[in-house]
Amino acid sequence: YELRGEPCGYCLILNNVTFSQGSGLTTRMGSDVDCQKLEKRFKALCFQVLTRWDLTAQEIVLELQELAQRDHSALDCCVVVILSHGCQTSHIQFPGGIYGTDGKPIPIEKIVNYFNGSQCPSLRGKPKLFFIQACGGEERDRGFVVDCDSPSDKAPGGSLESDATPFQAPPGNMDELDAVASLPTPSDILVSYSTFPGFVSWREVSSGSWYVETLDSVLEQYACSEDLLNMLLRVAHIVSDKGTFKQIPGCFNFLRKKFFFMSK
Amino acid sequence: YELRGEPCGYCLILNNVTFSQGSGLTTRMGSDVDCQKLEKRFKALCFQVLTRWDLTAQEIVLELQELAQRDHSALDCCVVVILSHGCQTSHIQFPGGIYGTDGKPIPIEKIVNYFNGSQCPSLRGKPKLFFIQACGGEERDRGFVVDCDSPSDKAPGGSLESDATPFQAPPGNMDELDAVASLPTPSDILVSYSTFPGFVSWREVSSGSWYVETLDSVLEQYACSEDLLNMLLRVAHIVSDKGTFKQIPGCFNFLRKKFFFMSK
Repeated sequence: YELRGEPCGYCLILNNVTFSQGSGLTTRMGSDVDCQKLEKRFKALCFQVLTRWDLTAQEIVLELQELAQRDHSALDCCVVVILSHGCQTSHIQFPGGIYGTDGKPIPIEKIVNYFNGSQCPSLRGKPKLFFIQACGGEERDRGFVVDCDSPSDKAPGGSLESDATPFQAPPGNMDELDAVASLPTPSDILVSYSTFPGFVSWREVSSGSWYVETLDSVLEQYACSEDLLNMLLRVAHIVSDKGTFKQIPGCFNFLRKKFFFMSK
Repeated sequence: YELRGEPCGYCLILNNVTFSQGSGLTTRMGSDVDCQKLEKRFKALCFQVLTRWDLTAQEIVLELQELAQRDHSALDCCVVVILSHGCQTSHIQFPGGIYGTDGKPIPIEKIVNYFNGSQCPSLRGKPKLFFIQACGGEERDRGFVVDCDSPSDKAPGGSLESDATPFQAPPGNMDELDAVASLPTPSDILVSYSTFPGFVSWREVSSGSWYVETLDSVLEQYACSEDLLNMLLRVAHIVSDKGTFKQIPGCFNFLRKKFFFMSK
């Protein structure tokens, strides 16, 4: 893929920090650190960054639809970053869901499909990148080697939080039929997940999430020389080496060519 | 990942061609071409190739369990190739399912999870690669540009077949709970799909499937110099340029490092 324009595309960042009381979801301390890092990073990579804070599920859907309906003809690609609590979902294509501040989940595959070839013609053939910092579910992965310093079920360190959900959303909430009905002409899509489907994703109050911190620093160091898939391998390698509760980022890739960012 | 041993690992190829009459599934003409190519290719890449033909769902499960229970201590990686009819599934992690010759489906995520860190300790930390030539579902993708030579709903050319299923398996068949119960310690897994979840995958009687034909020729040309993710980008690019009914291969990647094959 060749990026030429300046800006090369929109980068929409949805940063959900505070959730409604009824949702049972905790405040995501540290997420503002993630958000500020990524705003700065994607600006440096020649994106026009749009940031939205604390949206309900319905507001997220409207934001995504509004972005998908813009004219991207003069642009080369599009990025969507989601920082929120997440959950495991049953689905057809892309796993997982993320929560609006009202505690209502949206399936990732619904989010992705707003930008497919049928729904968003001006992005046809252009790369559409999604970065999801959210839990894939509630299962904590201690990895294979038991760390003797961490005998309990608690995360190491008082300031480490997870994007796990305190409850499992009932499948009926998930609007799956909608996602299936809008099956895409699906090429040129990459979804990078902070964690494997079904597992938690760790976040520190002071430095933000492991995934975003690592992604940002890998982009800083390598975006000028390496393609995106190789950089995501670096992110996976670094994050999977952290902590007692293992976390392995991964990506679902339907790009057809190497993707290189532009640098200012 | 460093491959050293010779063989570097097992490569199990499951080739389902003829299905029971009651299954309603057609004979997969051309699949033997795929199978022979891949046997030869993975032998050349220093794998010990095991090929099995026409297995029922139960027999496939037993084969996979038997392979997962072998001692892989002296080996560097493991490959599983599945050539069969496939279907769309609802799932938690990896999408899609494949059919046994008796017409019973097995979810891909169940297949993958036999080889995760908990189930298969001697492959911990080693790359586990899955290549799936099967339909993701029944939706035919004509792409964006309508080809005037192909006005009907039929595939172009008399010998082109799809791995679509004539019926949708009821979700109750899918043994999802089992897959969820065995959630993995999930690193070092890559699943390469011949097609996007929900879409068909094309196969020609004389030359085999588009995906395997392309995978084989890309491996032949680039396995000595490029890593697997880059080669899979080449495969996606070549396959997505073929035919009227577009097909886009993709992969779900939870590897942590670049993977290079060995060459003899």
